[in-house]
Amino acid sequence: MGGAKGSYGQLLLLFSLFLSRRPQLTISWSESAAAEAEAIAAIPCSGHGRAYLDGILVDGVPTCECNTCYAGADCSQLLPDCPADADSGDPLFLEPYWQQHAASSAVVFSGWHRMSYRTTGDYFISVELEKHIRLLHEAVGNAVTDGRFIVFGSGSTQLLNALVYALSPENASTPASVVATAPYYALYKLQTDLFDRREYEWKGVTSKWVNASVASMGNFIEFVTSPNNPDGRLLQSVLGGSSVIYDHAYYWPHFTAIPAPADEDVMIFTASKVTGHASSRFGWAVIKDEKVYQKATEYMQLNTMGVSRDTQLRVLKLVKVMLAEMRGEGGIFEFGHKTTRERWSKLSKVISSSNRFSLQQLSPLYCTYFKKIIDPSPAYAWLKCEMEGDVDCSAVLREAGIISRAGAVFEASSRYARLSLIKTQDDVDLLLQRMEALVSKEDVASF
Amino acid sequence: MGGAKGSYGQLLLLFSLFLSRRPQLTISWSESAAAEAEAIAAIPCSGHGRAYLDGILVDGVPTCECNTCYAGADCSQLLPDCPADADSGDPLFLEPYWQQHAASSAVVFSGWHRMSYRTTGDYFISVELEKHIRLLHEAVGNAVTDGRFIVFGSGSTQLLNALVYALSPENASTPASVVATAPYYALYKLQTDLFDRREYEWKGVTSKWVNASVASMGNFIEFVTSPNNPDGRLLQSVLGGSSVIYDHAYYWPHFTAIPAPADEDVMIFTASKVTGHASSRFGWAVIKDEKVYQKATEYMQLNTMGVSRDTQLRVLKLVKVMLAEMRGEGGIFEFGHKTTRERWSKLSKVISSSNRFSLQQLSPLYCTYFKKIIDPSPAYAWLKCEMEGDVDCSAVLREAGIISRAGAVFEASSRYARLSLIKTQDDVDLLLQRMEALVSKEDVASF
Repeated sequence: MGGAKGSYGQLLLLFSLFLSRRPQLTISWSESAAAEAEAIAAIPCSGHGRAYLDGILVDGVPTCECNTCYAGADCSQLLPDCPADADSGDPLFLEPYWQQHAASSAVVFSGWHRMSYRTTGDYFISVELEKHIRLLHEAVGNAVTDGRFIVFGSGSTQLLNALVYALSPENASTPASVVATAPYYALYKLQTDLFDRREYEWKGVTSKWVNASVASMGNFIEFVTSPNNPDGRLLQSVLGGSSVIYDHAYYWPHFTAIPAPADEDVMIFTASKVTGHASSRFGWAVIKDEKVYQKATEYMQLNTMGVSRDTQLRVLKLVKVMLAEMRGEGGIFEFGHKTTRERWSKLSKVISSSNRFSLQQLSPLYCTYFKKIIDPSPAYAWLKCEMEGDVDCSAVLREAGIISRAGAVFEASSRYARLSLIKTQDDVDLLLQRMEALVSKEDVASF
Repeated sequence: MGGAKGSYGQLLLLFSLFLSRRPQLTISWSESAAAEAEAIAAIPCSGHGRAYLDGILVDGVPTCECNTCYAGADCSQLLPDCPADADSGDPLFLEPYWQQHAASSAVVFSGWHRMSYRTTGDYFISVELEKHIRLLHEAVGNAVTDGRFIVFGSGSTQLLNALVYALSPENASTPASVVATAPYYALYKLQTDLFDRREYEWKGVTSKWVNASVASMGNFIEFVTSPNNPDGRLLQSVLGGSSVIYDHAYYWPHFTAIPAPADEDVMIFTASKVTGHASSRFGWAVIKDEKVYQKATEYMQLNTMGVSRDTQLRVLKLVKVMLAEMRGEGGIFEFGHKTTRERWSKLSKVISSSNRFSLQQLSPLYCTYFKKIIDPSPAYAWLKCEMEGDVDCSAVLREAGIISRAGAVFEASSRYARLSLIKTQDDVDLLLQRMEALVSKEDVASF
């Protein structure tokens, strides 16, 4: 609301500047940068790649960066026998959205843009960006931010450990135990192990500790991912202690129905899974307690002196577009949800005719954002190999030309594997093709 | 709100009609972003501030962000009795340089620019940027990079701890001791304490350990800052062990003569002190040993999954400008050195007539970049209060309306204080004024 008003005001200013300077337009110093960006964006890559300003130069021109399994100077060549790569959570499913909103989402950086350490807010945070993030949560209805503090991080990645640090008791005789429910996002363990301090250490899966008497001591820090990565379930804290970090990276209408605004004490979000800009390394935490906020802020200052202000400007522009288009024809959640829902639906259809594989069960749910019951649209398929001999599901898939993320990475059984549904359409098309071929072999085998 | 949105739409339509009348250019989707950036850059702030795209909006328009001690909507008002702030190392002395190179240093980001985690190089690093950083070192002659590995960090800040981690021995019975020579940059201690792990801990000033037998065990990690912050001296390792982190943040012709290319095993640099973009949070380490490189890389992946790709694109553009203009009329080192040299020379002149204060001794030196003997141009003055009663030099200055960084922050005597010479011209002008007034009082007192 304030965002719309803000952009209106900006536009009004621009407009009056333009009126006063007719017929001469005011583009001067940014003209060659604009021409360069457009020229490079116009390099033809056959719809299977794109050229970037900072791409590798060949004969002085950035080359097309092709989607997986495509090659050639213009990415027109489909590589034979190339495995379908469904491993990473690279959120390129939103790339076409931003291409469709090219004019509104572009940003021009002057060479002298905001060089100082100082920003408009405290602790290196842009006041306008913080305001627009609150507006975004309000417009989507996925989190309560009133009266909460917000900390920015270089991706949610940096915030994971910042919050473990912030929640660790000071001067405790034993380190706090950091736990998560399997299947869980591997970085929780890897990062806690990397930084393991005298104050905290990784202690494995939450379920081990449910009945332990130590749990009542409150010296636990529990990661809860909701919707869960990899299986998309909406989860709650198991230990119910006071130190719970809710990772809500996927709590957006792209990936799940939103039953109600999340209202926990510590919540983490990331641009990667809402705008799709994994590259920008931008996340934020919404924090209720002031002391936890102060400690997380201290961590951010000493670790990196805050988040790139360049990225803060870019994300501000993206959030403004999302707000301006909210719930309309060009809405990002309408686009995102439609894309992931169709991908899940197609994969489900393929797997439904299989006896060898199964998927996690997800049901249609009422979504307060869409104001109706919506079909599942998870970021990942959590595939199970059902046959006795298929002990290593990821290996079974690999044999069939599909790269998955093995269940063991999530401290789950190797009978499981994660398949990403949020990469490029090329990746998903190839995945569906290969899964279809794999499942159709079952029929042949059963004859 | 609906009304506002309606008129916003109408205005947008009118606005784009105006834009579409531009006759000659091949600019389309980036045009409104370019016009917006130029309109905001053109907001008049009296030469004592500037408006930014992501500035705080008042009536929908970004407000001028004024230099310290200036206020008013257009920053024209000099605040009476405002203290000269010479505290931080905010490198705004280079802001005019980029304003003078507006056309070549602007960058246009499309909304879909490089969204993926993946970049052109390994470990989230831009191949073109890495190449241009090597070219920059070669052109300046300040570091050997041939056959070395390069790791990017969110400022040199993030790399400090990444390298402490990378240099820590694994499975040692006692933690490695991290040390630095006083006066030293406070972050070495603060960050090591924040992250103190079972593998390393902060152990204070290097000199304490020179004759200790433990030093011979090699279980020390020594920070060496050269030129030193705060006093600008070119330093070498004191312990001479194998685990030395050379912080060369200031080893550029802006701040020092370059006697020879630095050639140590582990060297850190930061954009903040060469391009002046503290805000971008971009630094790099040049590393000889592959295992150290691998561990630092692992740290960068788990801590933040690399550095903002937005920032990598922006820094690439800045480095390209620096290389294109190298040693010419528009050279950044010519600009930077001239600025800092003049500031130092003026301050030295003021202090030379004082009995109460003294500055660090710096001599003219032969510089391989300028190919001649050059006068000192340090980033900071390291001021000493010489009179017996002036035990707390920073307090003496504060009394006279000057904010400095106290000697104690650098684990040095409180008879010292650091004065920044790299902030805006307004800051330095006010500092010189106040120092002049303070020194002239000595004459009065001595009558």
